[in-house]
Amino acid sequence: MVLRHYWRRRCVRYASSAPSFDWEDALNLDHNLTDEERQLKTSFRDFCQKALMPRILKSNRDAVYEKEVLKDMASMGALGCTIGAYGCTKVSQVGYGLIAREVERVDSAYRSALSVQSSLVMHAIHAYGTEEQRERYLPRLATADLVGSFCLTEPNAGSDIGKMESKARYDSDTKSYILNGAKMWITNAPVADVFVVWAKCDDGRVRGFLVDRGTAGFSTSVIPGKMSLRASSTGSVYMDNCVVPEDSLLPGVSGMGGPFSCLNHARYGIAWGAFGAAEACLAVSRSYCLDRKQFGKPLAATQLIQKKYADMVTEISIGLLACLQVGRLKEQGLVTPEMISLIKRNSTGKALDIARWARDTLGGNGISDEYHVIRHLINLETVNTYEGTYDIHGLVLGRAITGIQAFQ
Amino acid sequence: MVLRHYWRRRCVRYASSAPSFDWEDALNLDHNLTDEERQLKTSFRDFCQKALMPRILKSNRDAVYEKEVLKDMASMGALGCTIGAYGCTKVSQVGYGLIAREVERVDSAYRSALSVQSSLVMHAIHAYGTEEQRERYLPRLATADLVGSFCLTEPNAGSDIGKMESKARYDSDTKSYILNGAKMWITNAPVADVFVVWAKCDDGRVRGFLVDRGTAGFSTSVIPGKMSLRASSTGSVYMDNCVVPEDSLLPGVSGMGGPFSCLNHARYGIAWGAFGAAEACLAVSRSYCLDRKQFGKPLAATQLIQKKYADMVTEISIGLLACLQVGRLKEQGLVTPEMISLIKRNSTGKALDIARWARDTLGGNGISDEYHVIRHLINLETVNTYEGTYDIHGLVLGRAITGIQAFQ
Amino acid sequence: MVLRHYWRRRCVRYASSAPSFDWEDALNLDHNLTDEERQLKTSFRDFCQKALMPRILKSNRDAVYEKEVLKDMASMGALGCTIGAYGCTKVSQVGYGLIAREVERVDSAYRSALSVQSSLVMHAIHAYGTEEQRERYLPRLATADLVGSFCLTEPNAGSDIGKMESKARYDSDTKSYILNGAKMWITNAPVADVFVVWAKCDDGRVRGFLVDRGTAGFSTSVIPGKMSLRASSTGSVYMDNCVVPEDSLLPGVSGMGGPFSCLNHARYGIAWGAFGAAEACLAVSRSYCLDRKQFGKPLAATQLIQKKYADMVTEISIGLLACLQVGRLKEQGLVTPEMISLIKRNSTGKALDIARWARDTLGGNGISDEYHVIRHLINLETVNTYEGTYDIHGLVLGRAITGIQAFQ
Amino acid sequence: MVLRHYWRRRCVRYASSAPSFDWEDALNLDHNLTDEERQLKTSFRDFCQKALMPRILKSNRDAVYEKEVLKDMASMGALGCTIGAYGCTKVSQVGYGLIAREVERVDSAYRSALSVQSSLVMHAIHAYGTEEQRERYLPRLATADLVGSFCLTEPNAGSDIGKMESKARYDSDTKSYILNGAKMWITNAPVADVFVVWAKCDDGRVRGFLVDRGTAGFSTSVIPGKMSLRASSTGSVYMDNCVVPEDSLLPGVSGMGGPFSCLNHARYGIAWGAFGAAEACLAVSRSYCLDRKQFGKPLAATQLIQKKYADMVTEISIGLLACLQVGRLKEQGLVTPEMISLIKRNSTGKALDIARWARDTLGGNGISDEYHVIRHLINLETVNTYEGTYDIHGLVLGRAITGIQAFQ
Repeated sequence: MVLRHYWRRRCVRYASSAPSFDWEDALNLDHNLTDEERQLKTSFRDFCQKALMPRILKSNRDAVYEKEVLKDMASMGALGCTIGAYGCTKVSQVGYGLIAREVERVDSAYRSALSVQSSLVMHAIHAYGTEEQRERYLPRLATADLVGSFCLTEPNAGSDIGKMESKARYDSDTKSYILNGAKMWITNAPVADVFVVWAKCDDGRVRGFLVDRGTAGFSTSVIPGKMSLRASSTGSVYMDNCVVPEDSLLPGVSGMGGPFSCLNHARYGIAWGAFGAAEACLAVSRSYCLDRKQFGKPLAATQLIQKKYADMVTEISIGLLACLQVGRLKEQGLVTPEMISLIKRNSTGKALDIARWARDTLGGNGISDEYHVIRHLINLETVNTYEGTYDIHGLVLGRAITGIQAFQ
Repeated sequence: MVLRHYWRRRCVRYASSAPSFDWEDALNLDHNLTDEERQLKTSFRDFCQKALMPRILKSNRDAVYEKEVLKDMASMGALGCTIGAYGCTKVSQVGYGLIAREVERVDSAYRSALSVQSSLVMHAIHAYGTEEQRERYLPRLATADLVGSFCLTEPNAGSDIGKMESKARYDSDTKSYILNGAKMWITNAPVADVFVVWAKCDDGRVRGFLVDRGTAGFSTSVIPGKMSLRASSTGSVYMDNCVVPEDSLLPGVSGMGGPFSCLNHARYGIAWGAFGAAEACLAVSRSYCLDRKQFGKPLAATQLIQKKYADMVTEISIGLLACLQVGRLKEQGLVTPEMISLIKRNSTGKALDIARWARDTLGGNGISDEYHVIRHLINLETVNTYEGTYDIHGLVLGRAITGIQAFQ
Repeated sequence: MVLRHYWRRRCVRYASSAPSFDWEDALNLDHNLTDEERQLKTSFRDFCQKALMPRILKSNRDAVYEKEVLKDMASMGALGCTIGAYGCTKVSQVGYGLIAREVERVDSAYRSALSVQSSLVMHAIHAYGTEEQRERYLPRLATADLVGSFCLTEPNAGSDIGKMESKARYDSDTKSYILNGAKMWITNAPVADVFVVWAKCDDGRVRGFLVDRGTAGFSTSVIPGKMSLRASSTGSVYMDNCVVPEDSLLPGVSGMGGPFSCLNHARYGIAWGAFGAAEACLAVSRSYCLDRKQFGKPLAATQLIQKKYADMVTEISIGLLACLQVGRLKEQGLVTPEMISLIKRNSTGKALDIARWARDTLGGNGISDEYHVIRHLINLETVNTYEGTYDIHGLVLGRAITGIQAFQ
Repeated sequence: MVLRHYWRRRCVRYASSAPSFDWEDALNLDHNLTDEERQLKTSFRDFCQKALMPRILKSNRDAVYEKEVLKDMASMGALGCTIGAYGCTKVSQVGYGLIAREVERVDSAYRSALSVQSSLVMHAIHAYGTEEQRERYLPRLATADLVGSFCLTEPNAGSDIGKMESKARYDSDTKSYILNGAKMWITNAPVADVFVVWAKCDDGRVRGFLVDRGTAGFSTSVIPGKMSLRASSTGSVYMDNCVVPEDSLLPGVSGMGGPFSCLNHARYGIAWGAFGAAEACLAVSRSYCLDRKQFGKPLAATQLIQKKYADMVTEISIGLLACLQVGRLKEQGLVTPEMISLIKRNSTGKALDIARWARDTLGGNGISDEYHVIRHLINLETVNTYEGTYDIHGLVLGRAITGIQAFQ
């Protein structure tokens, strides 16, 4: 019913005049969204620009994580929004992508907070947890009463997470697990309340554990001197004979498939999000170069600037179509991890390029945080690196294409 | 009915096992095609590989245009295939794109022959001709009994076709037009039977004329030393007081909108086609590097090769999704010329990059025409240039993005 | 005598064994230096690593300008070191380049401080000042008892400095000039003691003035939120009916040739310096990737990393040879501004690329300031922009190559 | 004496006026040449443009090797010109580079003929041959009465020439060697009179043999369908129990060091030569774009074209300085193979880029051989590949930088 109405409206609109080119949606992605998704996009853009945008300058300058940001996102129903139960709303995979894009249009750190809470922590609990674990944690994570953290990367296990050294030894006497090890580059580590910790069990298989802050033997620290994603809190996690009851175990998965599945969910969101940052850079640059005159005309009137814009709009519009395709395939159970590697790598690599071109167009003002582009540029260095670097995803694809792995 | 069956089949397939990554369709474009389109794609791939592929080596080596190629395409119903009348079949815009892609998988010259006949000549007659003109020419163009040619570019008017110097003077006594001028870089000029010639009329507006070979004052010549698209015939056209009856005029359009509309149709096909050439390069390279061993393992096992493949598969798969989107929008009347500029520029620029990377992987064999890649590479230099160069389409986009033109 | 000894030593060295490849000097630049220059390079490298390197982490993190840095450089004789009089030492142009390179190996902000003091302020006074002005300012600038600042760029005159709006009106009654206007993106503005201010005189020609801090009507402010070159102090300068005596005028030049000559001196130093930053990035990356193991071997053993190193070493070594050539030509009065545009653009563009590749190799650690590379990367965004952006120098070269200007 | 005179002349010239920028020698390479070298450069440029340039269009179009080309070069004393004995002239290493550059300004195939004759064949005989071999072959190779060929690459041993399968079995009864094996991608194979053939001896070590055409069991064939370097003749060599007397052995070397040393000589010449081709492309493009008007002004007046020229001039001028540096080091025995890998890779990769940019500026005319650029472009694909591909030289450098080999 709604859909039919929508079609009539569009048909009327387009019948009355020739279609026109929209630089903010050059290949008419909007056309492929449902009414609901379009509305979601619009309302989230408003929310992000009104609630989040005013915070970011100071938050990034002072390298301060603000809990209110997650609270605000919770109030919009953004946390765990594909779960549709346990207090979580239900949007499509594409809808989730649109949310990530709008949040990252403000800052990659804010989108990271969203990704960790939703795609890593809440997804892990929902997919692999017991009914009891779900009920205990998900509603409070959805409201941001609890902040979550996902502890996988280790000092000696970056891209090669098979080298994980953290151990979980089962003690049958006390029916508990004793965790030992260290985790590094953990988003939210210094501020989280609950941690999904991955460790190797006695049988050599990796399993996940839910650890509450305050558990004896469990501690976190802040990584100082982080120059990127300054509005998020990143740290290390230490487990020194940290004892957790056996019902802390996420029983639904063992092996690397568990964390990999969570990462794939997160990477899917990153792929959408990165273009949000890129679009923000383009918009700032375009506005600046239309205003700024040099040699008697706006900078935007020069070929070298316009060539950059053509490249930006091209990469953004085709890259987003790829995200859309993967989202739709995901909704139908037709997605493969390699597809997600492909769009994660493409989106973050291209977004980084775009941010660099945009910064360049701003001249001297391009290094001031008041123009936002340099902040996005520096953030995207991380986004292009975390959850699988550009080169690693390239080799993942290379393996899928040739049937031969070339990591080693 | 067919569609339902299709869905069941796919559902069954995917229910029974996890979806798998297909390096030849990395983002599952197939999923977005109709049954009919998928069948069209498969049958055309077979036809092209069986009927056209065996010809190309010799044809390119000897720089010979073969009329049989167009005849063969006609036998498959490929000429004017979006018209659906006057002896032409009817496929969707996406279907037409799929055909262009399969033909260019063999050679860009063959796809050029298709584009000129279908998108330029037949489209012009169908869109702007009289009923009589349509009936006279279209059926014989559809069977390739007539070969067409589209005469727009001039020695002093390349990207800047507003500078056209060809004139059409009306002589009311004889009720005829007297054409004067020269055209350059005209595909099919040396071999065509009928020419759509654009010239400026007395009122200063550009109009199209149908000129048959043999008309007095009309002559053509071959451009020698063409190193690219050698399997197509390119030449110049000269009009020296060439008199054509007034009913040679295409009455349906005046101004640059006429040729531009034809070019847009052709560019849309080029955008699809270029990736066909790119896919051929990838396939040859992959097969070669899996076979060829250096330093004790296949070349395909090395990081530098795999990185190239990751980039190729990424650009092909996301670029084709963009072509699909524009095709679907075109079917619904929602396309704009800038969208076509975007995909024409992206497809041809990326395809050229891919051909270069692929040639590189072949080492010394990469310069032998028996490996095909160097032929595609050299062809794509033209494809990236004709019907609007890479930079010109960039400036078309720049103008649409900024509202300011920067050609001058 | 010394030279002969040098040659004998080298000949002996090389006679005894095959020459070996040195990744830190891949094309043996050292071979083209004089003994004196080699010694200068070595002693400056020591000094910079010992005296400056320990300061930079905190200085950059806190965005604090430290006067001691300039004092330290003064103690080494680095300030105004090509002047050779008025308390300044005398090194060759190549020697000056080597100093800039060693300083920027630590931080571009420190090299900027050196450039402003030496190439802009001291050069301007030495080249265009009266004997009295030289004696009054140069000795104290050489010791860093005075800090200088060079005020050219304006809010509405970036690359197009012909649009300068600052005015200097001569008042014949008081034999003084009355300055009005604003300057932006001025290095050292907030901390300098003496300012070389460029303004348009009543005859429409630009001239330079020496303005001491504390002059009525003259004020400075700090630019907040600068994310690049954080260890240098950048600000704005305001002149509101600022009255300076007529002997503040630099009498030796009028027109844009004055500031342009100073900028050329500075750009020459930047061209050398940028590669210092690039070399630091390479060295950090190489050391990190030799240490860090993934998938069972050092990262440095992988093709994708080694390819990056090959590119880095290539660009650094050939780029430095170009700096050397321009330095030697400069020593002989054979340099042209376009040559300096060429090396400034090449050095900074390539150095920025290198910093990006290096950062990429560090993975997650690449965003921590403790690994230095991200700091260099962000600094180089400025270095690639100031004193003529990458694109502007490209158009300067384009003009020289074609004879046609294309700024407008 | 000559040198002093030279200096005075230059000083006078430059004293009288400001130095001016020369787009054909942007960093004044000329200044670093000796009088003799400058004269050599000028006379060779004249010769090449007058004697060779008129031949190339037809020769390339028809894929015909012309013996007269080598004869002409011989008449100028270009063959074996660094040997200085046995009928060969004596120029410096830099002089040899200048010759290669001038020849390749016409065509890479002609420079290849020079390289094979001089750096591979004559060098091998001079360096590793007996006095008798030298006297027998060198004078006639210097006059081009004999054409030489260098047979190293095999079907299964490209970059990995350690995998060589050709065998040389010593027969003590007949005091002869029996050669068996096949060689591929051998320049001059179909037309040469004498062949330097590398094969593995009974002790497993590679040694060189001089084989005259006509020897029983020795045959050659032409590679058809070569689309690059069409003016040179490339083929395969087959040895089927080919018996040569024992004094055919080059006794001065065993192991891969022999062919590697020859290749290094050749690569050094290629490094210079490739920029000759690039300079030709720039010159054609510049001239074309100054003439050709679009949208009311010369193409050369547009930013996108000028940016390309800035990049071309930059890479050519700094790349040539690197060749000069390596040449000077070579003259003094200070060169290492890695330095040659560096400049071979840089020159050929950059020259290929430049040819591509230049072709792009020519629009449709860019695919006609009458504009020469497309011919250079296609040739440079080979030049970037042979005697070590771009990637292989990158890994050679990577190994030298990291101490770890990553070929495998």
